[in-house]
Amino acid sequence: MSDPLYEQLRDRLGELWDIAKIGALAGWDQQTMMPPQGGPVRAMQMATMSKVVHEQLVSDELGRLLEELAPYEESLDYDSDEASLIRVTRRDRDKELRVPAGLREEQARAGAEGFQVWVEARRTSNFELFRPYLERNIELRRRYAECFEADEPYDALLDDFEPGMKTAEVRDVFARLKDGLVPLIAELSQQEIDDSMLHGNFPLEPQKDLERAILGRFGFRPGSWRIDPVEHPFATSFATSDVRMTTRYLLTEFSSIFASMHEGGHALYEHNISPALERTPLCRGASLALHESQSRMFENLVGRSIEFWRWGYPHAQQLFPEQFGGVTVEDFHRAINKVQPSLIRIEADEATYSLHIILRFELEQELLAGTVDVAALPQIWTERMDEYLGIDVPDDARGVLQDVHWSRGTLGYFPTYALGNVVSVQIWEKVREDVRDLESHLEQGELAPLTDWLRERLWRHGRKFTPQETLERVVGGGMDPEPYLRYLSTKLGALTA
Amino acid sequence: MSDPLYEQLRDRLGELWDIAKIGALAGWDQQTMMPPQGGPVRAMQMATMSKVVHEQLVSDELGRLLEELAPYEESLDYDSDEASLIRVTRRDRDKELRVPAGLREEQARAGAEGFQVWVEARRTSNFELFRPYLERNIELRRRYAECFEADEPYDALLDDFEPGMKTAEVRDVFARLKDGLVPLIAELSQQEIDDSMLHGNFPLEPQKDLERAILGRFGFRPGSWRIDPVEHPFATSFATSDVRMTTRYLLTEFSSIFASMHEGGHALYEHNISPALERTPLCRGASLALHESQSRMFENLVGRSIEFWRWGYPHAQQLFPEQFGGVTVEDFHRAINKVQPSLIRIEADEATYSLHIILRFELEQELLAGTVDVAALPQIWTERMDEYLGIDVPDDARGVLQDVHWSRGTLGYFPTYALGNVVSVQIWEKVREDVRDLESHLEQGELAPLTDWLRERLWRHGRKFTPQETLERVVGGGMDPEPYLRYLSTKLGALTA
Repeated sequence: MSDPLYEQLRDRLGELWDIAKIGALAGWDQQTMMPPQGGPVRAMQMATMSKVVHEQLVSDELGRLLEELAPYEESLDYDSDEASLIRVTRRDRDKELRVPAGLREEQARAGAEGFQVWVEARRTSNFELFRPYLERNIELRRRYAECFEADEPYDALLDDFEPGMKTAEVRDVFARLKDGLVPLIAELSQQEIDDSMLHGNFPLEPQKDLERAILGRFGFRPGSWRIDPVEHPFATSFATSDVRMTTRYLLTEFSSIFASMHEGGHALYEHNISPALERTPLCRGASLALHESQSRMFENLVGRSIEFWRWGYPHAQQLFPEQFGGVTVEDFHRAINKVQPSLIRIEADEATYSLHIILRFELEQELLAGTVDVAALPQIWTERMDEYLGIDVPDDARGVLQDVHWSRGTLGYFPTYALGNVVSVQIWEKVREDVRDLESHLEQGELAPLTDWLRERLWRHGRKFTPQETLERVVGGGMDPEPYLRYLSTKLGALTA
Repeated sequence: MSDPLYEQLRDRLGELWDIAKIGALAGWDQQTMMPPQGGPVRAMQMATMSKVVHEQLVSDELGRLLEELAPYEESLDYDSDEASLIRVTRRDRDKELRVPAGLREEQARAGAEGFQVWVEARRTSNFELFRPYLERNIELRRRYAECFEADEPYDALLDDFEPGMKTAEVRDVFARLKDGLVPLIAELSQQEIDDSMLHGNFPLEPQKDLERAILGRFGFRPGSWRIDPVEHPFATSFATSDVRMTTRYLLTEFSSIFASMHEGGHALYEHNISPALERTPLCRGASLALHESQSRMFENLVGRSIEFWRWGYPHAQQLFPEQFGGVTVEDFHRAINKVQPSLIRIEADEATYSLHIILRFELEQELLAGTVDVAALPQIWTERMDEYLGIDVPDDARGVLQDVHWSRGTLGYFPTYALGNVVSVQIWEKVREDVRDLESHLEQGELAPLTDWLRERLWRHGRKFTPQETLERVVGGGMDPEPYLRYLSTKLGALTA
């Protein structure tokens, strides 16, 4: 039935994707399992893996195959798996061809080395140790951006994570977001909310028990996932039936469960891609913002809702009686939603979170343009944290060194977090239209009506469609910050009502 | 200084070895960390990784480079790293060229699938579940052997693990071994040794504490190793500074520490290869028998010696007071060396161990020749275990399914275990000539004089020399079972003296 040339493409991309996934495994291992002294060689190994993927993608054989498949592609539905694989691969290859193999390899190596040094620099709050690695990473990104024709250099970086989106569009969404957030935060910061029960004594084993109980409701197929502790949490997958979450346990804060639910949202997306797309480059999320919309949905729209904790809180009380024994679910819910400008992005509340992102988005553009000097970065970071959030930065570990992204040379990624917030609520509103009794399901700890909806409308399609097409299919329009602002104002405004 | 063509070779082999090592990481992950449902896709990924390594090794570019480097090679010392890399790569490539890529890929896939099924088959003691996978693996090995010109098909399989050694030589060594062992075992089995303290209650955490204390004496550089629990222990490495041991904890037997010391010996070998050989195909052991000589040395010559336990036993007593509190180190030493024919190879004593191997060596030759039918294997296994060791096999899990090797299609590997025993004592006798006070060092838990000797004479050279050359350099001769038989008879004979 299928075209023999298409079968060739399928085989070739199967192998390409095998190598890409095992390269990703090398990265997972680096962060979760690898003895630290393995770092330097691992950096070279990961660079080689990237190079092999690159070589396979730009190979003449693949180019010829894609050309020869043009008539077959035209004979197919645009929405079919086959047409999508041909279309997306052609786009990937055209983009990849613009970047010399040597540059990609250098980026991979510099990224892996930068990561190793960052771990140590962050531990000792030593920005100077990290500075030359960051400089090198930025210089390499500049050279990378130059490989593309774009309205501005940042467009090229953004396109890797949010294909087709322009920096100018992000600026527009962020401006509307900032306009809504600044007065909202000013108002919400006046709230007197007691969150002392979230600080204290949270032993590891009960944390893991709660995590198991909650992730157990996410509907992962048994024997298909794991979760491990790391410095900076992330999720990845090596097959739809092998998804890996990570988290970070703090023994004095009730916070890891939100990181786990966040990564759980990412993992659900990759876990529920159609098996027909396994071992193809379509077997991942449509874009980072769409990916992040899922992690933020499970972290916040589910994971910070009063409904979900009506089911979950009795478990938490049983596991942490000293902390939660005398606290009502309503007070707990207020505490986990407290708006309070703070130092650390991943611990920020839902309202201030986007300001952390806007800071990074601005700095990335300036670093790339060279209008901000790397050596001056800690100083500028400190100044803007004060200006945007009224926060004192006590040291670089809790300032400019807090995030892993730049250590790997990843610029253009941060904006997708805030865009993910925006999209998460756009999708949530659609779910609520279709699943009328969503809240009462959440109160029973029943996530299946939600996950069934998401699987059918979003997850199973993987990367078949562009982010714009995907969003249009799911919510019937483009990115719009209004639902997110409306949600924040309604939910957070009610906390002290 | 160095030839630019040689630098090209070095770069090319660096990448080849990166891919091979990350392929090995995929195998480590499969056995230690992977959620079981990841198995089918992982099998394909591993097959692809093998294929890429194969393609790079047989590439025309590498062939040309090796040809062009012939004059440079001749200008160098035979012993130099450079000449060795060229020489060994040429040999590897010539061998690899004989095997079609498709066959290698099929072997890798069948091996990974076989492994998955074996785990389940062993758990449920269901040989029939595993049978078709074993049949396929053997058929693939037959086709593999046909790719080579050899005196007998088994030579081709053996050569993968013990390059240059012939099946006939193994038969000869094993015949001499069997002649010495049979009367020795008959005599030693008469000994009345109480080993009841080794069975009982061994909680996990104290086992890990003892393991840490003992591996802590092995001299691994900090941050360069880890050990994880698995079904069937093994050791591997992804860099000289990233070595991975595995072990299996039983809570009712004092046995895991011997598995850990065994894998520790393997790990020390790869950990101590010269850094100059990092990221080259020379960066592994010279052969499996030489590798195994190191694991058996640390498991048995160190790990079952009265001297080492004079240091280690007080720790063990403290950790397991219920089991060892009232037992002298002499009685403990007798117990851990008790000769008693038993079911499980990896739990066998030093004297009967080689008979387990000889059984497998015979069966592998017969399976390959087709003179033994796979369906009849459990029956034949049972008969021969009775004949050789006087042992009843209660089920296949503790019989023919006990070892992982055949599940991955690995035939020709088993003999290297017994050859490793033989070589371990040949080397040990040399160490004792040079390190006169070795015993008193062991009594202090001081392994450095031993490991320094081994690093200098054996480990650092990696795979620069053939196994025969390597053995000649270390012990001044070929394989000889006499020292091993002498050692067994002296040590074990003295236990009840």
